[in-house]
Amino acid sequence: MDRTELILHTARKHFSRYGYTKTTMEEISRDCKITKPTLYAHFASKVELFKAVIDLEQQKCNEDIAIALSGITSTSEKLAIYARVQVESLRKFINIGGFFSRQAIFDYHPDMYNIYKSYRKREEEFIAGCIYEGIRANEFTPVNIETTAGIFYLLIAIIKLDVLLASGSDNLIENAESIIPELSSKTENAVKIFLQGIIKRN
Amino acid sequence: MDRTELILHTARKHFSRYGYTKTTMEEISRDCKITKPTLYAHFASKVELFKAVIDLEQQKCNEDIAIALSGITSTSEKLAIYARVQVESLRKFINIGGFFSRQAIFDYHPDMYNIYKSYRKREEEFIAGCIYEGIRANEFTPVNIETTAGIFYLLIAIIKLDVLLASGSDNLIENAESIIPELSSKTENAVKIFLQGIIKRN
Repeated sequence: MDRTELILHTARKHFSRYGYTKTTMEEISRDCKITKPTLYAHFASKVELFKAVIDLEQQKCNEDIAIALSGITSTSEKLAIYARVQVESLRKFINIGGFFSRQAIFDYHPDMYNIYKSYRKREEEFIAGCIYEGIRANEFTPVNIETTAGIFYLLIAIIKLDVLLASGSDNLIENAESIIPELSSKTENAVKIFLQGIIKRN
Repeated sequence: MDRTELILHTARKHFSRYGYTKTTMEEISRDCKITKPTLYAHFASKVELFKAVIDLEQQKCNEDIAIALSGITSTSEKLAIYARVQVESLRKFINIGGFFSRQAIFDYHPDMYNIYKSYRKREEEFIAGCIYEGIRANEFTPVNIETTAGIFYLLIAIIKLDVLLASGSDNLIENAESIIPELSSKTENAVKIFLQGIIKRN
């Protein structure tokens, strides 16, 4: 593991455990056994480091999705699997999972909002790609791809947020396991309705 | 207007303009030309008063919905109209509209969360009633009514929140007019997919 990887790995652990606000660059550098100036030479700020952690988790999550999708040809099945992997990924990708909690977008922290926007853009592009494919394959009715991808993204995100809030804590590391069954079932229901809503009928 | 009505009317104006946190019982009592003890004799706390304002707005919004629904027999049309009136109501019911913003649920304020829960329960009951009716009339496929009502509620709520957040301000009184066109169009799209997803086909 090179130094950048070590920092990312350590930062990811700290952010997962204590959240963005409570994690300090001080603690990360100490845990990496490097000086603070060395840490800042790699990542100019805590925001930059957090962004890199989110990017890493998103990339890893996309790899899981790619594996789960191998061999699948039906576009609606692809979207259903995508949603299922997103739910399962809460166990592994705590920062993405907790990212939609108040520390991020609801505090209107501009840097956080920018990280959220670029994360979301990449997810919506994947979803839009599936919808485009489904329309081309005559599996879906012609819909506005961008709008429909946005709806699918939001639907999955709000169910996650809602189940998290109802659990009384947005601390994912404490309660990911306990919320996943309910979250899976609700997400599956919502995805089913969504897909029925755009699948072409004869 | 009796004194309770005067207080409610005044409080609604203050909460709309300054939000929950910045509104004080002091200012409301001054504006009503009553003493603070008199105000507290009517509403035991600011939370109680805010709850009463939310209840009032929800009741008024339900009246608008009932008027818009008169003569409509198709259940899917009813749900589409319900969603449309909810969007339009942002102009009139600023507290309900802004209610899902960070001052309320995302600050994990327990009292606020309770107000939100009872508001939402009533909305979901209305939606569930429509879905039940649609299934009985053979218009909708048999679905889990409670879960499906929850999905519909969340779908409308998240689109509202998302458009609000993207507008850069959750101050509804400032930007309700400017966000309503986009919100209407996105909500209409989402509702169309949802309804297509549960409408029975032959």
